[in-house]
Amino acid sequence: MSKQARHMHLGAFLFGVGHHVSAWRYPDTEAAGILDPSFYERFAQTAERGKFDMLFLADSLALLGRSPAHTVSVRPEPITLLSYLAGVTSRIGLAATVSTTYHEPYNLAREFATLDHLSGGRAAWNVVTSSRNEEAANFSQERHPEHAVRYARAKEFIKAAAALWDSWEDDAIIADRASGQFAHPDKVHRIDHQGSFFKIRGPLNAPRPPQGRPVIIQAGASEAGRLLAAETAEVVFTAWQTIEEAQLFYGNVKSLLARFGRTPDQLKIMPGIFPVIGTSEAEAREKEQALQQLVLPEVGLSMLSGSLNVDLSGYPLDGPLPELPELEAVNGGKSRFQLVADMARRDGLTIRQLIYRVTGARGHRTIHGTPVQIADQLEAWFTQAACDGFNIMPPYLPGGLDEFVDQVIPELQNRGLFRTEYNGTTLREHLGLHRPTSRFSRTSEASSASL
Amino acid sequence: MSKQARHMHLGAFLFGVGHHVSAWRYPDTEAAGILDPSFYERFAQTAERGKFDMLFLADSLALLGRSPAHTVSVRPEPITLLSYLAGVTSRIGLAATVSTTYHEPYNLAREFATLDHLSGGRAAWNVVTSSRNEEAANFSQERHPEHAVRYARAKEFIKAAAALWDSWEDDAIIADRASGQFAHPDKVHRIDHQGSFFKIRGPLNAPRPPQGRPVIIQAGASEAGRLLAAETAEVVFTAWQTIEEAQLFYGNVKSLLARFGRTPDQLKIMPGIFPVIGTSEAEAREKEQALQQLVLPEVGLSMLSGSLNVDLSGYPLDGPLPELPELEAVNGGKSRFQLVADMARRDGLTIRQLIYRVTGARGHRTIHGTPVQIADQLEAWFTQAACDGFNIMPPYLPGGLDEFVDQVIPELQNRGLFRTEYNGTTLREHLGLHRPTSRFSRTSEASSASL
Repeated sequence: MSKQARHMHLGAFLFGVGHHVSAWRYPDTEAAGILDPSFYERFAQTAERGKFDMLFLADSLALLGRSPAHTVSVRPEPITLLSYLAGVTSRIGLAATVSTTYHEPYNLAREFATLDHLSGGRAAWNVVTSSRNEEAANFSQERHPEHAVRYARAKEFIKAAAALWDSWEDDAIIADRASGQFAHPDKVHRIDHQGSFFKIRGPLNAPRPPQGRPVIIQAGASEAGRLLAAETAEVVFTAWQTIEEAQLFYGNVKSLLARFGRTPDQLKIMPGIFPVIGTSEAEAREKEQALQQLVLPEVGLSMLSGSLNVDLSGYPLDGPLPELPELEAVNGGKSRFQLVADMARRDGLTIRQLIYRVTGARGHRTIHGTPVQIADQLEAWFTQAACDGFNIMPPYLPGGLDEFVDQVIPELQNRGLFRTEYNGTTLREHLGLHRPTSRFSRTSEASSASL
Repeated sequence: MSKQARHMHLGAFLFGVGHHVSAWRYPDTEAAGILDPSFYERFAQTAERGKFDMLFLADSLALLGRSPAHTVSVRPEPITLLSYLAGVTSRIGLAATVSTTYHEPYNLAREFATLDHLSGGRAAWNVVTSSRNEEAANFSQERHPEHAVRYARAKEFIKAAAALWDSWEDDAIIADRASGQFAHPDKVHRIDHQGSFFKIRGPLNAPRPPQGRPVIIQAGASEAGRLLAAETAEVVFTAWQTIEEAQLFYGNVKSLLARFGRTPDQLKIMPGIFPVIGTSEAEAREKEQALQQLVLPEVGLSMLSGSLNVDLSGYPLDGPLPELPELEAVNGGKSRFQLVADMARRDGLTIRQLIYRVTGARGHRTIHGTPVQIADQLEAWFTQAACDGFNIMPPYLPGGLDEFVDQVIPELQNRGLFRTEYNGTTLREHLGLHRPTSRFSRTSEASSASL
């Protein structure tokens, strides 16, 4: 162990006005202002005050839920919002979810390059392949493409985007007024990408981002998802209920890295945590209960039906689940399906009990208690090879993040588990990740990810 | 005439570190920081101090110029940059150029809706169809689509985007905590768009923008461009050398509006102006001369060749142009081609003289002189039915905008030709444009543009 203690990495997960589906009905939230910039400014500045590595914005390319009647189904577009927040923060990383299924590599590479420049090296891209037919219907497609096709496209998309980020070498710009030489033409490269999905000449019309490339994040836990992560990701978000599952996944993905010439420290694994904080454990449980009582039955049933790819509306709430489809038949959200199905089987849950699990933590791990109890539980996973940190999903906002930053962060800092100040200025520095060298650089060594 | 004098509308055009191709070699510019946020912050805040209606960001989806060696060929992505600037300004409109040829309506509608929300109603979309094969090559296409195909796609794209912005009625969100009713489901609409290019179900996953829809800007001056503008645009940017041409265009486009049930005040025509300001006219002309002397011959020849769709590298600089292609053979930048060809013919210019015209004002009108002389020339066009205002293209930045704001704006204000304070908060209010009602609104009247 090095002189400096190993610190955990923390993401602040931004989802509506809180991760709980009924957060908007909870006191002090302002759901009607879901596109109000001051809500987001406050979130970002609080997370930065807490020295979080990054804030993380989830996304979807269609309304969330089957009807807009009872849930906060609208969302800001991630790149647009994070660019806005780049101007009102100075250190925290900014992670945007963008789908490879419904975007173009050239546009995406430019957006992230620009965000990385404007934020001084704080951009991250959470790569998703989208999961719903409702999204396909907004992009001139009859149905959502198959899992294998989406993953093949994602892999090629990431490769092309990485080449575009590399296309201007770090020292390509000279800007010599006297001679009129703006750039070294031999340090600006066409990429001439030619694959099954894209044909892209390049170069990008933006100079190399401060981080070389934005940090690449992924979340898929399927077999294909793990391999894609081991090859291309630098952060993996996961959802695990038990430390055993988390340890198994952690060991498995870290061991896959060598296959792609990468070292274990170049990929950080961060499970989602839904923390319910109280002055006592009982108070925390009461708080969760209060949130659960705000869930309208039709909202819960619709969410659970969505997770499990079956229509549950005919079944008694206090009975067991009906027979579920095979995993192979699920196209999109395979990991989520498996997670919820496993939970039901393992814990013998009724439909009503399962609704509680998916409407609150949405399949992630719930931990209740005092700030000390919360810190204990985070410490246990972190020190027992189950993760490199956590993606914190406050149940309601802004209060849930305020409590975590004011009460749990100091406890983690006192234990030497978390930074008390940012050391670097870029997200790569916060996460301890290499800055990749451009593939075109003549002094180029093997880069951290084999893109 | 109403009691309040008619005011001109002004846009601050942001192109590299100045409109002149050699701006970056001019003293006090910082071309190496082309992605430095402080450069853009200063530009936006200066334009806002000058009470400009909007700042306007040009764009391209490939490197500018044939080689990156001698020109500032890189650019920030417009939506990303303007979202950043929304946070450091409060009144000025923010106009982003985005191509309909290489984007998807759902993504674009969301980005502009988000920008409009974050900026409190200051977003504008400059609709372009792109013009170069180099752009096609970055988007998996063999060649740039034909003019007619691009315009048909643009028209359908605007229509679909407008429907998406309308899909949440203004009063769709209730957010009633007690009942758990977040939105009126009957005020949130699928758009079920089905056309030749797109099939989009909707609704958008963002509530209706503060302006209803962002302001729509266009620049094409071809026959198809004028018709598209008369049907769908609210601001038209143009390039004219003489007041007679400008008056002809102004009269023509304003008269086309009735065909689409629109009134003349619902479309503002703003020609580009390249102002060279000095303490005397002679000093202004010397300044321009100094900029011209910084143009390397190969840069000028390459720009002129690009405008005219011919390779001029074999021809003597002090001789006339060779025979040019027919207008029909030009695919993309037809208006620019015609403008430069007309200029050469009308003024009997040599290649070298023509290079001066395209590398400075890039085909727009140059005016030289003292602040009073500049104001005189703007007043003449504005009061003689040639335009509703101007798009100001400072030769070099930040100095060229500083001079305009500190010296010309007060002169225009003294003459009662320009506002001394913003009256409204949205760009539509600055421009005197209707806020369109949603097509789905039950109390909906005919909207300003027939989208």
